[in-house]
Amino acid sequence: MTRVLLLGAGRSASSLLHYLLHHAPTEGWQLTVADAQPAHLAPVLAAHAAYARVVPFNLQDEAGLETLVSAADVVISMLPALLHGPVARACVRHARHLVTASYVSEEIRSLHQEALAAGITILMECGLDPGLDHMSAMRLLTSIRGRGGQITAFKSYCGGLLAPEAEGSNPWKYKFTWNPRNVVLAGQGTAKYLENGRLRYIPYQQLFARAERMWVPGVGELEGYANRDSLGYQQPYGLQNVPTLLRGTLRRPGYCAAWHALVRLGLTDDAVHLGNPATLTWAELVEAYLPAGMEAMRLPERVAAYLGLEVSGPEMQRLEWLELFSERPVGLPDATPAQLLERLLTEKWALQPSDHDMIVMQHQIEFTLNETPHVATSSLVVVGEDTVQTAMAKTVGLPVAMAVRQLARGTFGQRGVVIPTLPELYEPILEELEQDYGIQFMEEELAAHVPTGAR
Amino acid sequence: MTRVLLLGAGRSASSLLHYLLHHAPTEGWQLTVADAQPAHLAPVLAAHAAYARVVPFNLQDEAGLETLVSAADVVISMLPALLHGPVARACVRHARHLVTASYVSEEIRSLHQEALAAGITILMECGLDPGLDHMSAMRLLTSIRGRGGQITAFKSYCGGLLAPEAEGSNPWKYKFTWNPRNVVLAGQGTAKYLENGRLRYIPYQQLFARAERMWVPGVGELEGYANRDSLGYQQPYGLQNVPTLLRGTLRRPGYCAAWHALVRLGLTDDAVHLGNPATLTWAELVEAYLPAGMEAMRLPERVAAYLGLEVSGPEMQRLEWLELFSERPVGLPDATPAQLLERLLTEKWALQPSDHDMIVMQHQIEFTLNETPHVATSSLVVVGEDTVQTAMAKTVGLPVAMAVRQLARGTFGQRGVVIPTLPELYEPILEELEQDYGIQFMEEELAAHVPTGAR
Repeated sequence: MTRVLLLGAGRSASSLLHYLLHHAPTEGWQLTVADAQPAHLAPVLAAHAAYARVVPFNLQDEAGLETLVSAADVVISMLPALLHGPVARACVRHARHLVTASYVSEEIRSLHQEALAAGITILMECGLDPGLDHMSAMRLLTSIRGRGGQITAFKSYCGGLLAPEAEGSNPWKYKFTWNPRNVVLAGQGTAKYLENGRLRYIPYQQLFARAERMWVPGVGELEGYANRDSLGYQQPYGLQNVPTLLRGTLRRPGYCAAWHALVRLGLTDDAVHLGNPATLTWAELVEAYLPAGMEAMRLPERVAAYLGLEVSGPEMQRLEWLELFSERPVGLPDATPAQLLERLLTEKWALQPSDHDMIVMQHQIEFTLNETPHVATSSLVVVGEDTVQTAMAKTVGLPVAMAVRQLARGTFGQRGVVIPTLPELYEPILEELEQDYGIQFMEEELAAHVPTGAR
Repeated sequence: MTRVLLLGAGRSASSLLHYLLHHAPTEGWQLTVADAQPAHLAPVLAAHAAYARVVPFNLQDEAGLETLVSAADVVISMLPALLHGPVARACVRHARHLVTASYVSEEIRSLHQEALAAGITILMECGLDPGLDHMSAMRLLTSIRGRGGQITAFKSYCGGLLAPEAEGSNPWKYKFTWNPRNVVLAGQGTAKYLENGRLRYIPYQQLFARAERMWVPGVGELEGYANRDSLGYQQPYGLQNVPTLLRGTLRRPGYCAAWHALVRLGLTDDAVHLGNPATLTWAELVEAYLPAGMEAMRLPERVAAYLGLEVSGPEMQRLEWLELFSERPVGLPDATPAQLLERLLTEKWALQPSDHDMIVMQHQIEFTLNETPHVATSSLVVVGEDTVQTAMAKTVGLPVAMAVRQLARGTFGQRGVVIPTLPELYEPILEELEQDYGIQFMEEELAAHVPTGAR
């Protein structure tokens, strides 16, 4: 019998929980689901009472965490990333494995030696992005290297988007399927990546003006903007000498240019509270950002002139659709621009009950094989089943659950603080996703007969 | 006898210390100067041993702070603003007055009731800006109100600049006379102010493009950019109903447009470490920010084309003068752009031993009197004596010292957490600055015979 503890079972953990309950009887798992709001889980778990129970969990209760961890063999934390520290330390103390879908923080990284000494695995970044991106990229890179290929460029993009039917008349073709705040603050700072052997930087106020177009089979045209830190992937992917390295985020064409207009207006700043009343209208707010002059013109015309945009062009159309020039009140007093924008977008970009989300990921790898340049792409498209079993919940939760199964079975032996870059871990997971869930990367390869320099 | 404790006696406290030593014998003060590096103060204080002593002071030593505060009647803190909290709490515990030149933080504000109960004054914002700005503005506002004037606009600017001889061939006409980091990060976020009864916002990436020109007697032409929060002055200045309210920072003409170019390049971001080697050259760094294309052109030409500037124009001239396009190494590994820029500017904008600094402050007040619009200005220009008795040290330190004298004499009775907006405090200080130091605001007034609407 293996005792599995799931900390945090909100909506994003739906597919994960479903998998755990489905496999518990055959795998011999005793499952404890610990959540701050256990009531909504009771009916779900009632049919599985022989091997699953739900318990209330309070983050402030350190003794409670200690008891739960000590009574488990494998711990899963789907808590917010900032809360993984105490959980990981408890896992080290009691020598229990831990799996999460969050980035390795400095706090977690510092536990590596202690985790090794305790003989446990702290498996981080085992969801979608980070998670499936590592697994599928490493599989493709390993295959190319095995054939003697020299990697010259690695670009990788991921986006949480909408199934085409859900895009409807929304010109942004985007709704929130994940944390709205992260979307509003995306890219603040400086993006860094490598291009032809040189470090490249993009300041925030240029980021959304420099998106690149691409095409994904089964999806069509998309655009991608650079993530803040692409350089962090050099070491784990063994790409220390690759000349071109970029990680990016996918959106439908036109999104980035319109978001760039919001950035230029100043509506994504989160540093300063505006001292505004809640009754301030969006038209008044936007007007307050415009330089003096042209007061006789209509607001949309002034904004278009200020930003150098066509008043009836695609960017202004998206701003109008958000009701930025309307008498709608901003609704929050003394807020930051980013807080006001998030409030508006949370309504405008709300996923409807009938909407399906869609995850798209694409790796683009250039390599030289037998002195011939090649291009390989690996693309994933996953459409959500409904608003519970979303593509996001499936692609984040299933890799976590499958990794738990390997740790429970004892078939994965890497210890310490690790991410899923070893074939012994990712091969069975990619295989299971493909066989049992139809979650499959499509790989394509093209050998060019022109020298690299001429492309 | 009054026991005066000075915490922190770095170079910015030179004029303050000079004043305290000068007046100690006649005022009957016993002065304790507590500093982390007491050795350099010993020779200065040797001639004043009868009434002044220096002691070592370690910020980590809570018991030591407690002992020092309990043995004083009035405490002056010239420590960094973030460290005022423990000092203020010790002052409350031992019922000792406190004077600083720093902004009232939330932490300090929360001590108001306790300070009242202890019967002490925690006088904050009693230096230059904040400090002399409050005093001179309140004097002018009070005088206009006393004549029955209705204030319609209040604009106030301050800058720590260079005496014209010190500007030399430096096209920025600026050197550091205060904290370099604050200069590099100035304005990040959103600036907010009032204009004709409406809230106005300027996002950071537009701030330095919207500077206003002005003229100050004895100085000539200057330009001012808006400070982050002008609205905070409504309540203390009694300007809750004023239609136009702006606080700004002064620079020589041309500075703001060239700084705007640095902002647009991305060189002021402090959020992301670039992963750069220390040997990266400035030319390579700047090149890394440019979009692809135009590689055949010289770097300054590419930068000028990218920013839409004349390659031999005033902005590019200032960037060239900073050696931004040179083989000079940036000198710091894995730094933020702002850290690299600060390092470069600290060398380029270093005050030389023969340089004199200059403080300029100007209030511009519009008001209606007898149905006639008036404009009043109040301007201050102070030139430093040398690199120790700088204009900055005098204008920051002397108001603090003079306030201490009033608290020691018992002639200022306002208790709690306060700033210098009461005439009983500021009138004697402004008078003493004028009589004994020639630090004098020049007030000018103009009654226009055109209605306000026509201007």
